[in-house]
Amino acid sequence: MDVFRSAVVVALTTLALSVIDAASYNASWASLDSRPLPQWYADAKFGVFVHWGIFSVPSFGNEWFWYRWKTSNTSSFAKFMKDNYEPGFTYQDFARDFKALFFNPDEWAEIFQSSGAKYVVLTSKHHEGYTLWPSKYSFSWNAKDVGPNRDLVGELASAIRRSTNITFGLYHSLFEWFNPLYLEDEANNFKTQKFVDQKTMPELYELVQTYEPEVVWSDGPMNASDTYWRAKEFLAWLYNDSPVKDTVVANDRWGKGLKCHHGDFYTCRDHYNPGHLIAHKWENCDTVDKNSWGFRRNAGLSDYRTIEELLARLVSTVSCNGNYLLNVGPSKEGVISPIQEERLRQLGQWLSINGEAIYSTRPWTHQKDSRISGVWYTKSKDELYVYAVVLHWPKKNILELGSPHLTTESTVTLLGSDKQLQWNHTDSGIQVTFCSREEAKSNWAWALKMTNVTN
Amino acid sequence: MDVFRSAVVVALTTLALSVIDAASYNASWASLDSRPLPQWYADAKFGVFVHWGIFSVPSFGNEWFWYRWKTSNTSSFAKFMKDNYEPGFTYQDFARDFKALFFNPDEWAEIFQSSGAKYVVLTSKHHEGYTLWPSKYSFSWNAKDVGPNRDLVGELASAIRRSTNITFGLYHSLFEWFNPLYLEDEANNFKTQKFVDQKTMPELYELVQTYEPEVVWSDGPMNASDTYWRAKEFLAWLYNDSPVKDTVVANDRWGKGLKCHHGDFYTCRDHYNPGHLIAHKWENCDTVDKNSWGFRRNAGLSDYRTIEELLARLVSTVSCNGNYLLNVGPSKEGVISPIQEERLRQLGQWLSINGEAIYSTRPWTHQKDSRISGVWYTKSKDELYVYAVVLHWPKKNILELGSPHLTTESTVTLLGSDKQLQWNHTDSGIQVTFCSREEAKSNWAWALKMTNVTN
Amino acid sequence: MDVFRSAVVVALTTLALSVIDAASYNASWASLDSRPLPQWYADAKFGVFVHWGIFSVPSFGNEWFWYRWKTSNTSSFAKFMKDNYEPGFTYQDFARDFKALFFNPDEWAEIFQSSGAKYVVLTSKHHEGYTLWPSKYSFSWNAKDVGPNRDLVGELASAIRRSTNITFGLYHSLFEWFNPLYLEDEANNFKTQKFVDQKTMPELYELVQTYEPEVVWSDGPMNASDTYWRAKEFLAWLYNDSPVKDTVVANDRWGKGLKCHHGDFYTCRDHYNPGHLIAHKWENCDTVDKNSWGFRRNAGLSDYRTIEELLARLVSTVSCNGNYLLNVGPSKEGVISPIQEERLRQLGQWLSINGEAIYSTRPWTHQKDSRISGVWYTKSKDELYVYAVVLHWPKKNILELGSPHLTTESTVTLLGSDKQLQWNHTDSGIQVTFCSREEAKSNWAWALKMTNVTN
Amino acid sequence: MDVFRSAVVVALTTLALSVIDAASYNASWASLDSRPLPQWYADAKFGVFVHWGIFSVPSFGNEWFWYRWKTSNTSSFAKFMKDNYEPGFTYQDFARDFKALFFNPDEWAEIFQSSGAKYVVLTSKHHEGYTLWPSKYSFSWNAKDVGPNRDLVGELASAIRRSTNITFGLYHSLFEWFNPLYLEDEANNFKTQKFVDQKTMPELYELVQTYEPEVVWSDGPMNASDTYWRAKEFLAWLYNDSPVKDTVVANDRWGKGLKCHHGDFYTCRDHYNPGHLIAHKWENCDTVDKNSWGFRRNAGLSDYRTIEELLARLVSTVSCNGNYLLNVGPSKEGVISPIQEERLRQLGQWLSINGEAIYSTRPWTHQKDSRISGVWYTKSKDELYVYAVVLHWPKKNILELGSPHLTTESTVTLLGSDKQLQWNHTDSGIQVTFCSREEAKSNWAWALKMTNVTN
Repeated sequence: MDVFRSAVVVALTTLALSVIDAASYNASWASLDSRPLPQWYADAKFGVFVHWGIFSVPSFGNEWFWYRWKTSNTSSFAKFMKDNYEPGFTYQDFARDFKALFFNPDEWAEIFQSSGAKYVVLTSKHHEGYTLWPSKYSFSWNAKDVGPNRDLVGELASAIRRSTNITFGLYHSLFEWFNPLYLEDEANNFKTQKFVDQKTMPELYELVQTYEPEVVWSDGPMNASDTYWRAKEFLAWLYNDSPVKDTVVANDRWGKGLKCHHGDFYTCRDHYNPGHLIAHKWENCDTVDKNSWGFRRNAGLSDYRTIEELLARLVSTVSCNGNYLLNVGPSKEGVISPIQEERLRQLGQWLSINGEAIYSTRPWTHQKDSRISGVWYTKSKDELYVYAVVLHWPKKNILELGSPHLTTESTVTLLGSDKQLQWNHTDSGIQVTFCSREEAKSNWAWALKMTNVTN
Repeated sequence: MDVFRSAVVVALTTLALSVIDAASYNASWASLDSRPLPQWYADAKFGVFVHWGIFSVPSFGNEWFWYRWKTSNTSSFAKFMKDNYEPGFTYQDFARDFKALFFNPDEWAEIFQSSGAKYVVLTSKHHEGYTLWPSKYSFSWNAKDVGPNRDLVGELASAIRRSTNITFGLYHSLFEWFNPLYLEDEANNFKTQKFVDQKTMPELYELVQTYEPEVVWSDGPMNASDTYWRAKEFLAWLYNDSPVKDTVVANDRWGKGLKCHHGDFYTCRDHYNPGHLIAHKWENCDTVDKNSWGFRRNAGLSDYRTIEELLARLVSTVSCNGNYLLNVGPSKEGVISPIQEERLRQLGQWLSINGEAIYSTRPWTHQKDSRISGVWYTKSKDELYVYAVVLHWPKKNILELGSPHLTTESTVTLLGSDKQLQWNHTDSGIQVTFCSREEAKSNWAWALKMTNVTN
Repeated sequence: MDVFRSAVVVALTTLALSVIDAASYNASWASLDSRPLPQWYADAKFGVFVHWGIFSVPSFGNEWFWYRWKTSNTSSFAKFMKDNYEPGFTYQDFARDFKALFFNPDEWAEIFQSSGAKYVVLTSKHHEGYTLWPSKYSFSWNAKDVGPNRDLVGELASAIRRSTNITFGLYHSLFEWFNPLYLEDEANNFKTQKFVDQKTMPELYELVQTYEPEVVWSDGPMNASDTYWRAKEFLAWLYNDSPVKDTVVANDRWGKGLKCHHGDFYTCRDHYNPGHLIAHKWENCDTVDKNSWGFRRNAGLSDYRTIEELLARLVSTVSCNGNYLLNVGPSKEGVISPIQEERLRQLGQWLSINGEAIYSTRPWTHQKDSRISGVWYTKSKDELYVYAVVLHWPKKNILELGSPHLTTESTVTLLGSDKQLQWNHTDSGIQVTFCSREEAKSNWAWALKMTNVTN
Repeated sequence: MDVFRSAVVVALTTLALSVIDAASYNASWASLDSRPLPQWYADAKFGVFVHWGIFSVPSFGNEWFWYRWKTSNTSSFAKFMKDNYEPGFTYQDFARDFKALFFNPDEWAEIFQSSGAKYVVLTSKHHEGYTLWPSKYSFSWNAKDVGPNRDLVGELASAIRRSTNITFGLYHSLFEWFNPLYLEDEANNFKTQKFVDQKTMPELYELVQTYEPEVVWSDGPMNASDTYWRAKEFLAWLYNDSPVKDTVVANDRWGKGLKCHHGDFYTCRDHYNPGHLIAHKWENCDTVDKNSWGFRRNAGLSDYRTIEELLARLVSTVSCNGNYLLNVGPSKEGVISPIQEERLRQLGQWLSINGEAIYSTRPWTHQKDSRISGVWYTKSKDELYVYAVVLHWPKKNILELGSPHLTTESTVTLLGSDKQLQWNHTDSGIQVTFCSREEAKSNWAWALKMTNVTN
C-alpha cells in the first residue's frame, strides 16, 4: 500500500509543481484580487463570444439541450427527440454529425475583425464535457476523436493570431452535467475531488499551456466552492507561472458565491447590464439570438436582436464600465449564419465611425443623461473629451442634454465629421443642433464628441 | 500547494484503502502464487469467450482494426476505410452504429448452456478502451453513453446467473492503443502512472465490485511491468477483500514477462496448445473464426473451424491440463451468427455424450497415445477410470493403443453405451474392437472408458 | 399484337381525352397567344419564388449540384463529394436526409404575406426529377416516399390558401437531367416521346388537377421543341378545361426557341431585367442569393443581395412592365434562413409604405428618368397619378427630375405622408424639395406621387 | 388530339413491334403450351434461388417486411420500426443502407458451383419494385441509383457465365405492393393497364434483352389476369423472338388462376412438394431459412433447415418430376452467410458422390418405396439404371425394399463405390446388405444404383 500511495502522490502532483515556485500571488482571494487589471482588457470594450459544441448538432432549443431533455420528459426537448430520433438515441450519438464541414477559421477571423471586436472567446468545453481540442483528459469525447476530426481550438487560435490583432480567449466550463466523476463528488457533498483532479483541472492547465488564451472565461461552478475546484491555486499559477501570466484576464465564475465578488472582471449573471456604474471592471456577456447561446436551426428573424438593440446594449454597457461580449453560435458545419454575420459587420461599420467613443474610454461622471433617455456617456482616457452616444436621432435635429456642463471653449462635433455643431445653454443643460440626418455617417446611433466639459 | 497536495492524496487513495486491511496475501508474486486454485476452474475445462465491442461495427479484418488502420496506410484496413467511408471518419464515429439491436442475453445464455461450457468470459473492455458497462472512468466512451444505450456487461451477467449454472467472468484490457494518458506514460518510460491511476485500475476495481466476475481475464500489459500496472496490489485485493475473493481466478497477463509464469492459470500466448503436460493450470484461448476474435461480416465458411477441428483442440488441451476457452464474436446487432451457434451446439451435443471424459478429469500419465495419433487421455479425479478420446473412427472398427496397460479385470466401454467392448493384448499394447459406427452415439469423436488401467 | 396495340392506346390516351372537348383555344400558338392575360397577374407585380428539393441537402454550390458533379470530375462539386462522402455515394442517397424537420407551412405563409408578395411559386419538381408531392409517376422519388414523408406541395398550398390572400403557383421542370427515358428520347433526337408520355406530362396534368396552381411556371425545355413536349396541347387543356382555366397564367418555357415569344408572360432568361419597356407582360425571376437558387449552407453575408439592391431591381422591373419574382431557398429542414426572411420582411415593410407605386400600376411613358439615374416611374391604372421611385436620397433634400411635366395643378407628395412637397420648374424639368430624411417613413427608397402629370 | 394520340401510339408500341414478326407461337395458352420443354431444365434438377433487395436492409421478419409493416399497426414489423427508427422513416429510406459492400459475384459463383446447382435465379425485382439493375423504368429506385451504385444483376450474370457452367435465370415480380400505377389499375378493376404498359412490361422486356436469362421466374400476378399483364404476348415474344428463345424456360405465375396449369414448369405454391408424380414438369422452390426468403439478421440456428432435411426435400422432389430450387438470402452487404454457405456446400458434397441419382434422371415407375419410408426412386434417362436414395442408414446395415423387382442379372452398388452389394429376394421385395457405414462415402443419404430392374 505504501508503494501505491506514494506512487499516486508522485503521479498526481506533477501538474501542480510549478505552483510552489516563488510566486507573486498566493492562492487566496486577498492576494489574487490585488493583481492589477491588464490594460488591454480595460481598453478593449467589445469582444465576440462563440458557443459551439455538440449542442450545435440538434441545434434546437438552446445549448442546454442535453440537460433539459434528460431532466424533463415533458419538455419540448424530450418531445423533439421523441418526434425525430429513434428510441435509445443518446446525446453522444449526435457527435458523429458534428462535422464542421465548412469551418474555415480564417473566414471567422475576418468576420470578427470586421466586427470591431478586440477579443474573442470560444467555448473550448461546455457543460456537456466535449472538448473542442484533443484533450488528454477527454479521450473519445473531443473534436479530434469524434466528429470533426480536427483541433478546433488550435485552428481558430492560429487563424486569429495569424491575420488579426484580436486577443484570443477561451471559455471553459468547470462542471459537466453528466460526468459521473462530478456526480460522484457532488453526491459526496464535494468532499471528494475526483472530477477536479482527473478531469477538469488537468484539462484547464493543458488548455492554457497549449493555446495560451489571454482570457480565461470560467463557467459552471454550480454549488461547489472554489476550494473544491482548486480554483485559487489555478489562478495563482495562471498569474505567476503560466505562459500568459502578464496579460491574461480571468472572470469571476470560480466557485459558489464568488460571482460579482472576485476575479479580474465580473460577469455576475448572463446578459448582466446594471445601467449604472460598477466600480470594478465587469463584462456583459450577451447574445445575438435572444433565446440561445448555441445556434438554433429553426430560429426566425424575430429571435435575433436588431442592430439598434445591440448598439443600445453595447453603449450602455461601456458607459457603466463594462465590456460587451457578444455571442454568436455557429452551425454544426462551422458556419456563422449570415444574419449573425450581418449583425457583427453592422457593429463593425458603426465602430469604424464611432469607435473613438468606445475603445479605450473610461466611464464619465454620468453614465446616462439626466434629462433624456437613450443617451450614454464615456470619456477619453486622457479626459480631454466626453462622448455622448445618442441612440435615437433627435426630433427636428435638436437634442437637449441635461448632464454635460460646457464652457465657451467647448466644441461639439459628431463622430465621422469635423464640422462643429451649434450648441447653446438652456435652463437645464445644453441644446445641440445636429446636421441633417443624411449628412451623418452613422446609420443607427450617433456619438457627440465634446471638449471642455465640466461637471 | 500543501493544501492541493494533501487533497490529491486523500482523493486518490480512497480506492486503495481496502488494501491495507489485514490481508492473507500481500502484493508479491511469492505470496499471490501461494494461493490454491479454486477447484471449480480446474473442473470446468470448457468455457466460452466473447469478443464484442466497437470493432464489431466495421466488422472487418479482425478486432485490431483500429490499430492496423492507423499504423499502416497501405494495409487492407486503410483501404477498407478509403473505399467505404468519407475522409475524416474516425474510429469513434463507428460507435453510434453499435446498436446491439437484437441483443438478447437470455438467448446467449441458452446457447452457452447448450454448448456445455462451464464458464463464459466477455470482453468488458478491449484495447479500444470502450467499456461495455457504464464506467465512471470512461465517460462518453461506453455502451450506455454511445451506441447501445445499455449496460451490456450487467445484462449478460444477470442472464447467465438467472438461467444457467455457468460461471461468469470478464476480460479486461489493461492497456488501450490510443488512450493519450497511456501514451504519455509510455513516452515517460512508464515512470508516470496517470493512465493506471485515473483510468485502467479504477475501472477494473469498479468492474469487479459491480459485476463480481469469477474469472478476471487480464490482457494487454504490453511493455509495461506489473509494477507500472499496480497489478500485484490489485490481485492482493482481489484475493483478500473483493466480493469474489474465494472463488475468483485470474490469468497471467499482468505485466511484461509474466505470461506463463504467474497467476491462477497461464494463458501464455493466444491459441496456446503445447501438446504435452504443463504442470501449472493453463488455458487455451481459441477461436471459431480462424482469423479473428471479433465478428467479421465477410467471413466465409472456410474461415470457421469445423467441429472436428474444434474437438481435436478441446481434447488435446484438456489432456495436457489446460482449459479450453473458445471464442465467438457476436455481430454489432448482438447476434451470435448461426455458424458459430452451430459449432457451440455441436460441442454441447458431443459433451452431453462424452462429457465424463472431460469435466472434472485430471491429466493421466500419458497425454497422447504412444502408438497412434489422434488419441488423447484423461483420467477421472478418483483415478478409477482412464479415458481415451479417439478423434478418427478406427479402420474396420479395430483400434490399437500403445499406452494403457490393462489387467484381466479391465473393462472397456464407449461413452454413450454400457456395452463392453472386446479387447485383447497385442505385442505393443492393446487392441479394442469397436461397435459398428452406426451404433455409436457420437458423430465425431469417441471416448473409451477403461477400468483397472495401470501405467 | 393488335390486342396489345389497342390496349396501349386506350390506356395512354385517357389523360388526354379532355383535350378533344369543345375548346376555346386550340393547340396552336396563334390561338393560345390570343388569350387575354388574367388581370390579377398584371396587378400583382411581386411574387416569391421558392427553390427546394434534394439539392437542398448537399446545399452546396447551387441547385445544379447533381449535374455539375456528374459532368466534371474537376469541378468544385466533384471535389466536395470526394472530400466529404464515401465513394459510391449517389445523389439519390441524399434524399433520406431531406427531412423537412422544421417545415411549418403556416410560418412560410406568414413570411410571404409579410413580404408583400401577391403570389408564390414553389418548385414542385426541379431537373433532378424528385417531386415534392406524391406523384403517381415518380414512385419512390418523391417527398412522401423518401425523405420528409410529407406532401410538401399540398401542405404549402393549403397554408397559403388558409391564411393569406396570396395566389399559389407551381414551378415544374419539363426535363430531368438524368431520367433514362428522357435520355433515350434525346438520343433518338426527340422522335420518341416516352419520357413525355410516361413521366413529365402525366405528372404535370396530375399536378394541376390536384393542387390547382394559378401560375404554371414551366422550365427546362432544353433542346426539345414544344411539339416533343406536347406543350401546346397541355396549354390548350389548361386554358379550356383545367380547374384553373380562368385565372391561371403560364410562362414561356415550353420548347426550344419559345422563350420571350409565347406564353402569358415572358421570362426570357433568369434575372431578366432589360431596363426598358417590354410591351408583352414579362417577369424577372431573381434571387436573394446572388449565386444560387437553392439554399447554400456555406453562403456568407456578401452572397446575399442587400435590400437596396433588391429594391432597385424590383422598381426597375415594374417600371418596364415586368413582375418581380424573388427567390428564396429554404434549408433541408424547411427553414427560410433569417437573412432571407429579413430581406423579405424589409421588402414588405417598404411595400407597406410604397406599395401604391407598385401594385396595380402600369408602365408610364417613361420608365426611368431622362436626367438622373436611380429614378423609375410607374403610373396608376386610372392614370391619375405618376409615381417616381427614387433609389438614393437626394443631396440636400433637393431632387431634379427630367421626365415629368407638371402643371400648376400638380401636387407632389412622398408616399407615407400627405404633406405636399415644394416643387418648381427648372430649365430642364422640375425640382422637388424633399422633407428631412428623418421625417420620411421609408428607410431605403422613396416614392413620389405626382398628380396632373403630362409628358 | 389526333396528333397527341398517334404520337402516343408510336412511342408506346415500339417495344412490342417484334411481336408481329412471323412467329412460331401465338399469344394463346394453347399455342404457348405446345412448346417442348428445353431439355437442360429437365436435366438440371437443382438450382439456387437468391432473394436480395431492400428487404435485406431491415433484414427482419421476412421479405414481406414493407407490406406487413404498413398493413398492420400491431404487427411485429410495426413494433420493430417503432422501437428502432425515428417517426416518419420510410421503406425507401432504407435504400441508402443497401450498400452491397462485400458483394463479390465471383465468390457467389464459386459457392453456387460448389453446391452442385445447375441454375441460379436472382430476384431482379421483388414486390417492393426496386430493381437490382439500372432499369430505365425505375429511375431512382434501382441499385445503380440508390444504395449499391452497381448493376447487381449484370455483375452476377457475368460472373456466373465467366466461371461456371450454371445457367443464369431471373425472378421478376409482375406486381408491386405500393406502386401507385398498379394501385390505380387495381382500383379500376384492372380495366386500365398503366402499370403494365409503363412499368412492369417494359422493364421485363428490357431485362430479358439486356441479361438474357434462361429462366424467367415470374411472380406476383395477384388478382389480375394474364390479359391484364399482357403475359401471353410477352411469352410469345420470349419464345419467338427473344435472344433466349431456344433455351429459356418460364414458370406458371402469369395471371390469376394459371398456377399449376400453364407454363414451361409449374411452381403451384411456394415449397410445393406433392410427394407423388406430377406429369408436367414442376419445381419446388424452397428455402434454407424456414421462415423467410430474405436474410434475417436475427435468425438463429434452429431457423435453418439441416442438411438432412434439405436432402429429403431434394430427393423427394426429383423423384416426383420436380426440380429443386433452394433459396438463400444474402445480407445487405452482399454476403451469403456461412450457415447458408455450409448448407450449399454440403449439398454439393453430397451431389459430387450421388449426383448420378439426381441429374438428368427421370421419374421411375415408383416414386417412393412401397414398403418403407425414406426411400425415393429415380431412373437414368437411358433407363439402364434405377436409383434408390435412402435417407436413413438401415439398421444393422440391412435394407428391405418393396418396389424394385430384380433379376439374377441385377447388380446393386452404392454410389461412390464400385463394390457390389449382396442382395436377395424376400417375400415382399428385396433385401440389400450395405457396406459398413464408415466405408460409405456419403455422410447423410445413400444412393443405391440397380441394374436390370423390372417393375
